[in-house]
Amino acid sequence: MKVFTYKNLNAEEIKALCKRTAVDFDRIEPTVREIIQAVKTQGDVALQSYTQKFDGFLPDPLVIPVPAAEDVPLSEDKKAAFDRAFANIYAFHMAQKPGDLVVETMPGVVCRREARAVEAVGLYVPGGTAVLPSTVLMLGVPAMIAGCPTRIMATPPQQDGAIAPEILYCAALTGITHILKAGGAQAVAALAYGTESVPKVHKIFGPGNQYVTCAKMLVSQSDAVVAIDMPAGPSEVLVIADETANPEFVAADLLSQAEHGADSQVVLVAQSAGFIEETLTETERQLQSLPRMEAARKALANSSAVLVEDRAQALVFSNLWAPEHLIIASENAAEYVPGIINAGSVFLGNWTPESAGDYASGTNHTLPTSGYAAMYSGVSLDSFYKMVTFQELTPDGLRELGPTVEVMAQAEGLEAHRQAVSRRLRHLS
Amino acid sequence: MKVFTYKNLNAEEIKALCKRTAVDFDRIEPTVREIIQAVKTQGDVALQSYTQKFDGFLPDPLVIPVPAAEDVPLSEDKKAAFDRAFANIYAFHMAQKPGDLVVETMPGVVCRREARAVEAVGLYVPGGTAVLPSTVLMLGVPAMIAGCPTRIMATPPQQDGAIAPEILYCAALTGITHILKAGGAQAVAALAYGTESVPKVHKIFGPGNQYVTCAKMLVSQSDAVVAIDMPAGPSEVLVIADETANPEFVAADLLSQAEHGADSQVVLVAQSAGFIEETLTETERQLQSLPRMEAARKALANSSAVLVEDRAQALVFSNLWAPEHLIIASENAAEYVPGIINAGSVFLGNWTPESAGDYASGTNHTLPTSGYAAMYSGVSLDSFYKMVTFQELTPDGLRELGPTVEVMAQAEGLEAHRQAVSRRLRHLS
Ligand SMILES: [Zn+2]
Ligand SMILES: [Zn+2]
Repeated sequence: MKVFTYKNLNAEEIKALCKRTAVDFDRIEPTVREIIQAVKTQGDVALQSYTQKFDGFLPDPLVIPVPAAEDVPLSEDKKAAFDRAFANIYAFHMAQKPGDLVVETMPGVVCRREARAVEAVGLYVPGGTAVLPSTVLMLGVPAMIAGCPTRIMATPPQQDGAIAPEILYCAALTGITHILKAGGAQAVAALAYGTESVPKVHKIFGPGNQYVTCAKMLVSQSDAVVAIDMPAGPSEVLVIADETANPEFVAADLLSQAEHGADSQVVLVAQSAGFIEETLTETERQLQSLPRMEAARKALANSSAVLVEDRAQALVFSNLWAPEHLIIASENAAEYVPGIINAGSVFLGNWTPESAGDYASGTNHTLPTSGYAAMYSGVSLDSFYKMVTFQELTPDGLRELGPTVEVMAQAEGLEAHRQAVSRRLRHLS
Repeated sequence: MKVFTYKNLNAEEIKALCKRTAVDFDRIEPTVREIIQAVKTQGDVALQSYTQKFDGFLPDPLVIPVPAAEDVPLSEDKKAAFDRAFANIYAFHMAQKPGDLVVETMPGVVCRREARAVEAVGLYVPGGTAVLPSTVLMLGVPAMIAGCPTRIMATPPQQDGAIAPEILYCAALTGITHILKAGGAQAVAALAYGTESVPKVHKIFGPGNQYVTCAKMLVSQSDAVVAIDMPAGPSEVLVIADETANPEFVAADLLSQAEHGADSQVVLVAQSAGFIEETLTETERQLQSLPRMEAARKALANSSAVLVEDRAQALVFSNLWAPEHLIIASENAAEYVPGIINAGSVFLGNWTPESAGDYASGTNHTLPTSGYAAMYSGVSLDSFYKMVTFQELTPDGLRELGPTVEVMAQAEGLEAHRQAVSRRLRHLS
């Protein structure tokens, strides 16, 4: 980790520290475009042949039903853990249920807003060697609560054609309606356009490798008419630690981010050079025991520790950096909260490791990266709805509001807009 | 207008009816990329020179302050109309204020969600010949209520360098903090990247011509790290009329959509061939009196009337089409509401012209087009916030939840995630 002293940095250097290494899609984009085009035009056949090529298995059928939870072969302790995580995620997302809104903005003019579930959603779950059942819960639970009628989970099959039982179990818990045994850009294309066996969806969620990310970007600006959850980049954490933090815990948190991959972004912000040194030493020590040591070591090599003068400076930098995950390693974490503007999900206090939120505290782990926390929210129940507004005027309401509309339409030179009011008013007079 | 009978259409024909004519950006994209690159690298100088080239005026300074409302030279009736619209839009958006959410998902595990205003937003307002003060209100009011600290309105100057007083007045009402006298792709680029005089923003809102739309798309997937409100396409309306509708009003509503431009999309859905015929005749008659007759006539030529058998069929088709604006021209409009899934904003009953919502009922007029109403909401107060989630575990909370996290981390092969819990639990035992 490189160590910086904040007060010695100029504006350009701070900007550079906040800049994430951009993922370069130029190299893979032609391939991804070709895959999308093939699946768009040839449907199932293309989807099957890419799956055979990339995952070593030809799925037939491509779409399988979800087994009952009790039929999934999985140890009781795993089932209990997924059940607990499900319950917490369910509780927090259920509390996000939107109410209907009704406002009579003036007498006879009633405006309303009602939520409608997105009718068909695609939930991408990485597979193959990395099995990520937590992603099924994070996407499946809000889709279930919103009541999206079609909830397709897409995940690449293992080489023997199987889907990991952990994934099947979480799919069963969340009432996934279809399992698509395919991954990569080809699965994204199938969800976006639909094929003979895959219903077309309206919105695609979930993390993936660069092919998946590139495909999501391309279809979201194509004739497929499909939305995606958010732009995706490497996962990241920023830890603000003060004198009440524990270097052993902070090191463990930095490493749990670093082990995600060599491109993970890890930043430590602290008020004491001694604390930074102690934490870095402890990080090196803990690193030795990790199976994913190599990836973590590479991630740390590209990471920074920033020495700040006080809490205010820590927050200024953190808000500029806009981290996906923000850990406030402090006994006084609550005091930081009002100053936190740009962050995806925040972990308060010394007893709240990021992994708690990654899995089971109840918050969603699908979060904005790469500085997008400054303007995007993480996935929430809202992500599975759209809001429809309604308005209804009574004849008296139109009498009251009509003249305003006529004046404004005239100001904008839109005569037919004016007449739509005037003709009605004439009937009422 | 072409007339179709729904029951005679096959699935392919219905799909074709729902397909919007895609805007082809391929032709202009190289130009837009060049403009963005120039503004990104040369800042104000490029912005000024493009404004001179495209708008016939070199703005210096580029950014001007907002006058006080009382200093804007505007007739009292116009001011009163804008004041009324402001009040209604304010009331409906104020009611959307998000509350904080606190859920103790299990003993000792508290999850929270709090809204944070996006720190800097850019509000694009078309200018030049078409003056659209209503757009200032629709974007400025929610930005004001959310309290986004930096709210930049970008609008191209007239050839004499002036900004229309209607726009200035609405900017004053909504407390815009900066007026950028520039439009087009160059203004979008300045907002996305910032220049010497223009603060960089985090999110760009508002309608524009194809250069603006193309620039918004490009910067939203660039290293600028900026979000946009939604994909944009030509404006559109679908009217469902039953036997209680009034052909004169329906014709006026169709025309008020058609006058927006030759590419406007207009659809009439009715249960009686006689009603369709009567409405088309009335449309032709009203068309004669419109200054924008030519544009409206072209839009109508590309539009459709669809004869359906009953209300259910009307709703099935309308949800497939997913209109930006949906008018329920019926005395029994309320009965349609539960069946409306995909629509941006809905106008209920015979006394609610679309122009009421375009200007002043209180709902937002920045809405998803081109079928995106199936998965996007219109602009609302939410669009100016992002939601940050928080979690805090007590030592007892970690004792309860920790084992779940350990099992799940192990299932995903993420040992450092497990250790971040285990090391803390060891301290507690
Ligand atoms: Zn993690
Ligand atoms: Zn309109």
